Amino acid sequence: MNRVRSFTLAALCAAIAIPAAAEFAKPEDAIKYRQSALFLQGQHFGRIAAMANGRAPYDAAAALANAQVLADVVKLPWAGFGPGTEGGKAKPEIWKEQVKFKELSDKMIAETDKLVVAANTGNLDALKAQAGPTGASCKACHDSFRNK
Amino acid sequence: MNRVRSFTLAALCAAIAIPAAAEFAKPEDAIKYRQSALFLQGQHFGRIAAMANGRAPYDAAAALANAQVLADVVKLPWAGFGPGTEGGKAKPEIWKEQVKFKELSDKMIAETDKLVVAANTGNLDALKAQAGPTGASCKACHDSFRNK
Repeated sequence: MNRVRSFTLAALCAAIAIPAAAEFAKPEDAIKYRQSALFLQGQHFGRIAAMANGRAPYDAAAALANAQVLADVVKLPWAGFGPGTEGGKAKPEIWKEQVKFKELSDKMIAETDKLVVAANTGNLDALKAQAGPTGASCKACHDSFRNK
Repeated sequence: MNRVRSFTLAALCAAIAIPAAAEFAKPEDAIKYRQSALFLQGQHFGRIAAMANGRAPYDAAAALANAQVLADVVKLPWAGFGPGTEGGKAKPEIWKEQVKFKELSDKMIAETDKLVVAANTGNLDALKAQAGPTGASCKACHDSFRNK
């Protein structure tokens, strides 16, 4: 598991290291890309949150599957916030506070990895305990960097 | 590698097996979900196609990273085509020809897995040889099931 995870991360970091200009044909594509990835995140996290909050029945296999997809997708949006891609609901602060923005996105990736571990226990209490911090890591970034 | 890949696939299949009604709060979410996933696919495949066609310089690490992300994302859109989610650019034939639709989506997943293998060789000719079949598998589905 660790070997493959490291490999995937290394590969993703290689992709993220490419300048945004080389990644997207036009700024609108970068905006649509990050919005697409963030929408997928919201859907997959929402299903887990619903189980954690008792709004949906707990299904251990579905919780794990959703956490795994979330862990893949949560690494993607950040490449869509390159220079010259201001717009959408993104606050201009993103491009002025890059260190903080990266800290919050890294935090969300880390909290999602923990969610996979929690979901993998097959225990609803473990899922509940980690759904909060993972959701909080989404919210922290929205509070600072997303217009309503 | 195989162990983790099998694990991820099993988890994803579990997610895909959930009825669409339980997955999405409303049909519009399903439509937006599949459109989001397909947009991500287009971006990641586009970067590989550009290298294969000589429109972008070959970067073995970036090709592999993009193929890996594509292999994750290509499994997602299909859950967004559940009953009652007609709309967007999706042709009504999708819901009338479910066997064919599944064949074509399975084919694309398989051709993308082969693209990861090809990208992993670090050889541009190997990438070129598989970029064609993978692109053709996208096109086959678009030709049958996507309105222009």
